[in-house]
Amino acid sequence: MPAVIAGSDATSKLIASSLSGALKARLVEAVYKVFPDGELYVRVPDDLQDPVMVVKTMSPPQDSSIVESMLLADALAGIGLEDIILVAPYLAYSRQDRRFLRGEPVSVSVVLKAFRASGYRRLITVEMHKPESLKYFEGDAVNVSPYRYMADRVELPESPLILAPDRGALRRAMDLASHLGVDYDYLVKERDRVTGEVKIKPRDIDARGMDVVIVDDIISTGGTIAEATRELKRIGARRIYVMVAHALMAGGAVEKLRGAGVERVYATNSLPPRGGELVRQVDIGPLLGRVLRDEGWC
Amino acid sequence: MPAVIAGSDATSKLIASSLSGALKARLVEAVYKVFPDGELYVRVPDDLQDPVMVVKTMSPPQDSSIVESMLLADALAGIGLEDIILVAPYLAYSRQDRRFLRGEPVSVSVVLKAFRASGYRRLITVEMHKPESLKYFEGDAVNVSPYRYMADRVELPESPLILAPDRGALRRAMDLASHLGVDYDYLVKERDRVTGEVKIKPRDIDARGMDVVIVDDIISTGGTIAEATRELKRIGARRIYVMVAHALMAGGAVEKLRGAGVERVYATNSLPPRGGELVRQVDIGPLLGRVLRDEGWC
Repeated sequence: MPAVIAGSDATSKLIASSLSGALKARLVEAVYKVFPDGELYVRVPDDLQDPVMVVKTMSPPQDSSIVESMLLADALAGIGLEDIILVAPYLAYSRQDRRFLRGEPVSVSVVLKAFRASGYRRLITVEMHKPESLKYFEGDAVNVSPYRYMADRVELPESPLILAPDRGALRRAMDLASHLGVDYDYLVKERDRVTGEVKIKPRDIDARGMDVVIVDDIISTGGTIAEATRELKRIGARRIYVMVAHALMAGGAVEKLRGAGVERVYATNSLPPRGGELVRQVDIGPLLGRVLRDEGWC
Repeated sequence: MPAVIAGSDATSKLIASSLSGALKARLVEAVYKVFPDGELYVRVPDDLQDPVMVVKTMSPPQDSSIVESMLLADALAGIGLEDIILVAPYLAYSRQDRRFLRGEPVSVSVVLKAFRASGYRRLITVEMHKPESLKYFEGDAVNVSPYRYMADRVELPESPLILAPDRGALRRAMDLASHLGVDYDYLVKERDRVTGEVKIKPRDIDARGMDVVIVDDIISTGGTIAEATRELKRIGARRIYVMVAHALMAGGAVEKLRGAGVERVYATNSLPPRGGELVRQVDIGPLLGRVLRDEGWC
């Protein structure tokens, strides 16, 4: 019987629980400890069989989430398992997916190679910044797009205009718009790579009186979405909704989005809930279960 | 010309500086940033040549030290380097070097494999808990024993008795005692693996009126050394000195050692200075430089 084992954090535990329910898999507990010097300790039950799914989202503190996942894989390999699957709803470091400047690392490749080296054979994640980055994981890897699933479970306005905050995110807007049978477009974003400042340039979009859903992979500090919201309001848009896979909500994001006039943010529960009433989370466990079954991984 | 590049922390910078001096190597700076969500960013100069030594001690927060090291290796590989050497004076997770209980990971192997996967070709460290653990690093690896080097640079009492706190550490005591031309012995330590409590059992050691130097690889919370000191005082020892490679000094170690009556702790500077007057650090940079040259790595 396949087993699901959760990382030490509350978010991973929640998703592990719903995933095991969806798969009718065994939900098992690991032992977690932090030594006085800060080193992590894990121990897994020794009566497991292949396949085992480790549910561990790479939420802050990201580096400890990464190391904990690696320790879990080695512990599972140590009891003789081979089919060890990492279910990482949020994958940290996935925005550093190329060397934007000479001398930079491809951080996402570093993390994915480390997961493989630690013993994971397969990997499933939700909406990576660039799904192509999964090529760095030398095993089976799947990226799950959550927008259609989310759209079926939240209250969206009637006939909204779906917007990507930049051209790179257009695929997401297309996907959701085609699911809803509505129009889509994208904004032009420019980010200063030194200061990090984001500027949204108006394009020839007629958003007057429209309800808008901005679709993106992640809200980090909320700068991009807040700027887009202000720009859309300026050109006459009505209500602005946001749909993202991951709501990190770092560094004052909640205040920024509220201040810009965002109506509501929909996100998966890949990260701890932040933002009170502003952010509504959709449990990603059942969707992960469906994909895992469709892939024949369990 | 070989180059030395330091990790982001003050300890690594100090050792990098003295190592580059000892090797007459170029000391270069990397760019370090922490994004608002907690992700690390590194960037290395792009005009380096093989070999490059990354000096990064795995001090707390250990997991971020590990990830930072991995990012640096990938960044260096990205500018075309191949001979990338990790100089990690303190290697975290090295005490979990086997599966003491079924279901545990071999944490040190996880870390060493991750280093290799990230691009390090060689590794040098100071006094691992078990130097045999270096077998998990699939590249050249060297463990440096610091005790003779330290003994030549600190004030030890005349004709001390050298003691290992347990039989596993006997090699260290033998090495130092033979260097000083004095006697050595070991104490019998028992650690309860559940509670972590340490008991030192008296053996047939005549320490009456003797000055003692306890030699060990590491002081973590100081429980073992404090217990040994009390036991030695009880059987009549005079002054108790401690010589360790790594003084982590976690969880009240300083107070514990002072309370037990330890005269002084000598440690390398592999970790940030802690313990005020009680702990005296010896710069390990020159010794690392000597070994790196002897090995022909630079």
